[in-house]
Amino acid sequence: MRVLVTAGPTYEPLDPVRFIGNHSTGKMGYALAEAFAATGAEVTLISGPTNLPDPVSPRIQTQRVETADQMYAAASAVAEAADVWVFAAAVADYKPAHVAENKIKKEGNTLTLELIKNVDIAATLGKTKRPEQFSVGFALETNNEEVNAREKLHRKNFNLVVLNSLRDAGAGFRVDTNKVTLLDAQGEMLIFEVKLKAAVAHDIVQAVLARLPREE
Amino acid sequence: MRVLVTAGPTYEPLDPVRFIGNHSTGKMGYALAEAFAATGAEVTLISGPTNLPDPVSPRIQTQRVETADQMYAAASAVAEAADVWVFAAAVADYKPAHVAENKIKKEGNTLTLELIKNVDIAATLGKTKRPEQFSVGFALETNNEEVNAREKLHRKNFNLVVLNSLRDAGAGFRVDTNKVTLLDAQGEMLIFEVKLKAAVAHDIVQAVLARLPREE
Repeated sequence: MRVLVTAGPTYEPLDPVRFIGNHSTGKMGYALAEAFAATGAEVTLISGPTNLPDPVSPRIQTQRVETADQMYAAASAVAEAADVWVFAAAVADYKPAHVAENKIKKEGNTLTLELIKNVDIAATLGKTKRPEQFSVGFALETNNEEVNAREKLHRKNFNLVVLNSLRDAGAGFRVDTNKVTLLDAQGEMLIFEVKLKAAVAHDIVQAVLARLPREE
Repeated sequence: MRVLVTAGPTYEPLDPVRFIGNHSTGKMGYALAEAFAATGAEVTLISGPTNLPDPVSPRIQTQRVETADQMYAAASAVAEAADVWVFAAAVADYKPAHVAENKIKKEGNTLTLELIKNVDIAATLGKTKRPEQFSVGFALETNNEEVNAREKLHRKNFNLVVLNSLRDAGAGFRVDTNKVTLLDAQGEMLIFEVKLKAAVAHDIVQAVLARLPREE
């Protein structure tokens, strides 16, 4: 089995020194790469800027990228040959419309930044998904969690969505634990307790394996 | 001797998960804190988000902050009692005018971010500097390096400016080495070679000690 995992944040440059980023640490995506490798899968881990070392498993090939455009290019190159796609990265929705070549000097009391939409990596690849491929997305929501997550599942052609809420203590960014709810395309919902991210990754891998199309 | 050192980037939140940041690692500021502590000084290190552990020296007290406003509050509280100020942090010039309470949903194809100027920590504290206090600033420039650095020295009431150019290989962010030029308020200029940041810190400390007002 071949698995594509994206992980970590993306950084969208404003100029040579500044960027728009987010607080994703990459821990959940790296834990998923490890958990899939532990089942014998060959994993390509495409990671935004994190402080985590490359996983040591010889079954995991790590590629480092910085921006959403770079992550899309790297994911596109391996998606067709992968059986399972796991979009655990926190990809920036927007990027600056213009990247300044030199450091922006502060002049006015205000500054207006024009941002344009980034490519939606999961949705774009989702349009190319074959029936035997399986796609897992993440939804990090602060309000209307379940409704937003179900909408995301259909819009991005996911087979499974991992929902975590910033309102749950012990869930989300910058912590070693997570509390997730899994929603699948058949409408089934699995609610888990707070666990270490490695244990959450194991739960997600088991949920994926149980739902993979059976080979004839 | 008491020394205040600021270090690292600041992160200016857009919403609960996104922020505007910069590529400062904090290494130069932490190296300066260590180098001052090694001369027997008592150092307060005010650090933005970095991956560096707190320095172990008992002479260095580390305070962690996230935003420019938090860094200003922390620096203001110790500046009056400090003999030397070292502004090594890469403070964001601008912050979002509004911080969204919930995660911003992507809707339009473009997004306009209104930014407002952050407090200029060095310039604001510079107005309160007493004749016996000594202030060191940093200038990271990509063009017109020396002119910009001299202008900064006067505007922010620095006694010494450390200039590094992003055009020099081995200088600036995300590397363990630096190549600096020191400009002082008397117009003297010292040009150093590429060195490890610990060695650069030693050079800067020696330049500060040589220029401190003599006690009667």
